[in-house]
Amino acid sequence: MPNIASHAKELPASPIRKLMPFADAARAAGKHVFHLNIGQPDIATPPAFFDAVRDADLEVLAYSPSAGIAPLRQKIVDYYGRIGTTISVDNVLVTTGASEALQFVLNAILDPGDEVIVMEPFYANYLSFCLQNLGTIVPVTTSVDDNFALPSVAAFEEKISAKTRAIMICNPSNPTGVCYDASTLHQLEQIAKKHNLFLITDEVYREFIYGDTKPPSALTLEGMEEHVIVIDSISKRFSACGARIGCMVTRNQEVFDTTLKMAQARLSPPTFGQLGAAAVYDLPDSYYDGVVTEYSARRDLLKASLDRMEGVTCPDINGAFYAMVRLPVEDAEDFCRWMLESFDHHGATVMMAPGAGFYATEGLGKNEVRIAYVLNEIDLGKAMACLSEGLKAYNS
Amino acid sequence: MPNIASHAKELPASPIRKLMPFADAARAAGKHVFHLNIGQPDIATPPAFFDAVRDADLEVLAYSPSAGIAPLRQKIVDYYGRIGTTISVDNVLVTTGASEALQFVLNAILDPGDEVIVMEPFYANYLSFCLQNLGTIVPVTTSVDDNFALPSVAAFEEKISAKTRAIMICNPSNPTGVCYDASTLHQLEQIAKKHNLFLITDEVYREFIYGDTKPPSALTLEGMEEHVIVIDSISKRFSACGARIGCMVTRNQEVFDTTLKMAQARLSPPTFGQLGAAAVYDLPDSYYDGVVTEYSARRDLLKASLDRMEGVTCPDINGAFYAMVRLPVEDAEDFCRWMLESFDHHGATVMMAPGAGFYATEGLGKNEVRIAYVLNEIDLGKAMACLSEGLKAYNS
Repeated sequence: MPNIASHAKELPASPIRKLMPFADAARAAGKHVFHLNIGQPDIATPPAFFDAVRDADLEVLAYSPSAGIAPLRQKIVDYYGRIGTTISVDNVLVTTGASEALQFVLNAILDPGDEVIVMEPFYANYLSFCLQNLGTIVPVTTSVDDNFALPSVAAFEEKISAKTRAIMICNPSNPTGVCYDASTLHQLEQIAKKHNLFLITDEVYREFIYGDTKPPSALTLEGMEEHVIVIDSISKRFSACGARIGCMVTRNQEVFDTTLKMAQARLSPPTFGQLGAAAVYDLPDSYYDGVVTEYSARRDLLKASLDRMEGVTCPDINGAFYAMVRLPVEDAEDFCRWMLESFDHHGATVMMAPGAGFYATEGLGKNEVRIAYVLNEIDLGKAMACLSEGLKAYNS
Repeated sequence: MPNIASHAKELPASPIRKLMPFADAARAAGKHVFHLNIGQPDIATPPAFFDAVRDADLEVLAYSPSAGIAPLRQKIVDYYGRIGTTISVDNVLVTTGASEALQFVLNAILDPGDEVIVMEPFYANYLSFCLQNLGTIVPVTTSVDDNFALPSVAAFEEKISAKTRAIMICNPSNPTGVCYDASTLHQLEQIAKKHNLFLITDEVYREFIYGDTKPPSALTLEGMEEHVIVIDSISKRFSACGARIGCMVTRNQEVFDTTLKMAQARLSPPTFGQLGAAAVYDLPDSYYDGVVTEYSARRDLLKASLDRMEGVTCPDINGAFYAMVRLPVEDAEDFCRWMLESFDHHGATVMMAPGAGFYATEGLGKNEVRIAYVLNEIDLGKAMACLSEGLKAYNS
């Protein structure tokens, strides 16, 4: 039997999806499963998206331009103008989700063994994308005990080696809900400039802000034109995960030209997703206000519910729609599996993502879970009741 | 300025798209450009595809399962049953085009420096995908002079090294139109078994057959369950390139499990493309008959036209919808660019893909072009007149 590649043998199973067979089995056994494991919003996709797809009058569903259709690229430029930074269409590469943008960027900047500094806990798929590109995540550890605050500049600098190529952040952060403000970004800017690093910022949760800290886009940093690569997506912004439309934005011409070659090799992003995206990118601020009001209420409910549970530590959450929560269990993966296999509360249970997969440091996150608060308040309340009762039962 | 990766600096520009700015300029100057550079069929996408997209009654455009929606995977299984091989849904991974399937497979099997044996000329993007995965294409050269026939087994075996991981073919072949029959596949089977190699077969043009040679799917090879990885797509089969729906089919469990992890990391393939694909996968044979009749006539016209041009060598073409053609010029890229920049015939010109990008061996293909016969007979006839007159003008 032919061998697969050695790096491919190391690929992790996604902590977000690996317990799915147990959820399927729970459903087959008649339980209702509240899915808090995945960032799949229940918010309705804007009708304008579906209208644009339905109204597309195509005879041939052809390849689009590799960098994306012109109207979408222009709407993305206009959108960035509204959030305070001037870019041109030549800075925008439309991709098949933020996932593909990340893949392109990591492939473009990583030689084997090169390192990317990432705050842990991080979005778990960063690890897979780095490993697929033979890179190494060098984690800077943050902790629930101080609300996952950014460590000191010194903590970053001690992680930098000759192989460091980039600092990668998610702002607002999946999975921690942290928002990095302008002064925090300036710290990272100083490090990136001093050590000649790329600053990759995943800003797909940009509008999902509940506290006072409004994270600026890294594109607003002055003198960082060659360093900053922004990863973006419509999946969360417009609750259109299945469209598979994201983009990479950079003013670094070499990075753009290189990723464009990759984009040309894969031909084009999906046409229907682009048509829908172009129809919603200029929705008014009131659209975001409605969504943020909804998530803000969910966040309050989640935080209040978790704070009432004995032994549970929920941090302050200021953005995105996740919480990285410490549970009074030794092995959160075992607990999550047990919740699906062996527990129900009034016929229902909860699926969460075990925390260890969000850390690169061995042993960290074992007693944590990531909770995505993507359910309405009624369901979220029921899910919290399941978790509360489940913890009592598991620990007795 | 931060550096990009050394392998990324070597990425080639796509020969299919690199002259596009000159085509845009030609159009801006008022010329009509016949696009024979890209395999973008002008055949109407089946209405059932668009109906399924229009009728999708979704409130939330959610992620699909990472391996694809269940109805589509089942229809793909049924389709393979009709072409003579039994697979299960657990052998089918739905991908974002054949491009993503190729990326997953090459990433899964290649460590840095590993080699893939490919007949040249080959689909140009294979080179980009190999380089992105730090692999090397080891070419087995075929020639227009004997209709790009498969070389002897000995010619393959002398290319095999300790680093060889796979033989990769496209059958029917883009760009040559060659079809490999059962006995040819058995030759490759012997080599793959003897040297413990994967056999990757890109079968996206399966139905586009004009001669007597009907290429069997590699999935029908007995005792090759662990070796064979089939790459497939709806882009050409249903003229739905913009859907971005392909698949990987393999009975090798380790390859499947590994590529599924990659699929989970990128979350899901596009939803609308999957809905459309599921609606057309069971079209009756009469659908293919109509398409093949159309392409067969185009092939006849192309071949007859080229055979009449002095100094032009057009091979026999038995499948797909491309021809790799030798022109009486020294530098086909210069000629293709000149056709766009400096020539017109009754206000029209032709864009073709320069041949060198379809070869890995330096210097080969410089006097060749790839022509995609994706235009109706009237336009194709006009395009051939342009080419004929252009060659005379260029050479005088």
